[in-house]
Amino acid sequence: MHGGGVVKIYGDSISGNCLKAMWVADYLGLAYDWIEVDIMAGESRTPAYMAMNPAGQVPVLIREDGRPLAQSNAIILHLAEGSDLIPADAYQRARMLEWMFWEQYSHEPYVAVARFQVKYESKPVADLDPTLVQHGKHALQRLEDALATSMFLVGEQVSLADVALVAYTRMAGEGGFSLGDYPEVVAWIARVERRLRIP
Amino acid sequence: MHGGGVVKIYGDSISGNCLKAMWVADYLGLAYDWIEVDIMAGESRTPAYMAMNPAGQVPVLIREDGRPLAQSNAIILHLAEGSDLIPADAYQRARMLEWMFWEQYSHEPYVAVARFQVKYESKPVADLDPTLVQHGKHALQRLEDALATSMFLVGEQVSLADVALVAYTRMAGEGGFSLGDYPEVVAWIARVERRLRIP
Repeated sequence: MHGGGVVKIYGDSISGNCLKAMWVADYLGLAYDWIEVDIMAGESRTPAYMAMNPAGQVPVLIREDGRPLAQSNAIILHLAEGSDLIPADAYQRARMLEWMFWEQYSHEPYVAVARFQVKYESKPVADLDPTLVQHGKHALQRLEDALATSMFLVGEQVSLADVALVAYTRMAGEGGFSLGDYPEVVAWIARVERRLRIP
Repeated sequence: MHGGGVVKIYGDSISGNCLKAMWVADYLGLAYDWIEVDIMAGESRTPAYMAMNPAGQVPVLIREDGRPLAQSNAIILHLAEGSDLIPADAYQRARMLEWMFWEQYSHEPYVAVARFQVKYESKPVADLDPTLVQHGKHALQRLEDALATSMFLVGEQVSLADVALVAYTRMAGEGGFSLGDYPEVVAWIARVERRLRIP
């Protein structure tokens, strides 16, 4: 990235999707301004915000040249290009992307949504949609199975697959999931936090 | 890719996600075996299939070296690496990925799911979940707005963003959506089909 401006990240600190961008930028030592966007107050739906991202979602990256980029996983792929967070091997890179697409389709819509409803909409865990809970458990079990045979999701090195998946997995307890049922996942969360230097 | 085997794509021809992989392989002139998987008959949930893809989803690519890859968008990114379907410019490439993640999170779960329920589960359009329909219309309107100012989703060249989004958009009518309400989208579908040589 080049140009006269400063990189900006528009994000809501309660959102795991936004934290992904923060963690990657911090890990890479990138200087940036963090602009807090209160999604609960509708700040991601204002005309000014929608001009940056017509999808009305957080986070949004504004590059030094002023051009915007949305979608958490597209943002971290862009920020981390050429870094050790993206495997050099083509097949490993493809597997990383497989996990990142799976995260947005089969993990976030359940694990993150349950947590949002419980923590920010005060829904009792017992009132969560049973299908939502079942899909969330299924996603956590898939991580547990994968992590039984490797240190990180793509082999033995931390990658953006771990960044994408750890974001909401580490908060799953806030949505009523029992992380203690997934010991490989618990150990992996600690490994990823240590490697990424997540506070 | 290298090795002694033949590339295989396991897919169900009724699935837009699977057709993405077929179109890209055909566009690139890649030789492959297509193995039909009947998802309605549970063929993506057998132990043999789950060994290839623990998510139990189609499509799955088996590389020449025998290693598997899942998630339609990860598969087409892998197949198309180094081709003109992926922009050389870093920002354009990032925007392409933004559209591809948006497709799986904000388009496919509504436009494709409505079509599946109507066409394959015989649900009357009038009985579709109104929220599902609303989100689907919102996704189609976002495409309409984006395509009012450019020929393809990422500038003036066809890319994997168009492949990913056209797959279910061109079938939206089968889910009860009125594509005639989105004339830019209709014109774009024809352009993409022509460029990708989709029959």
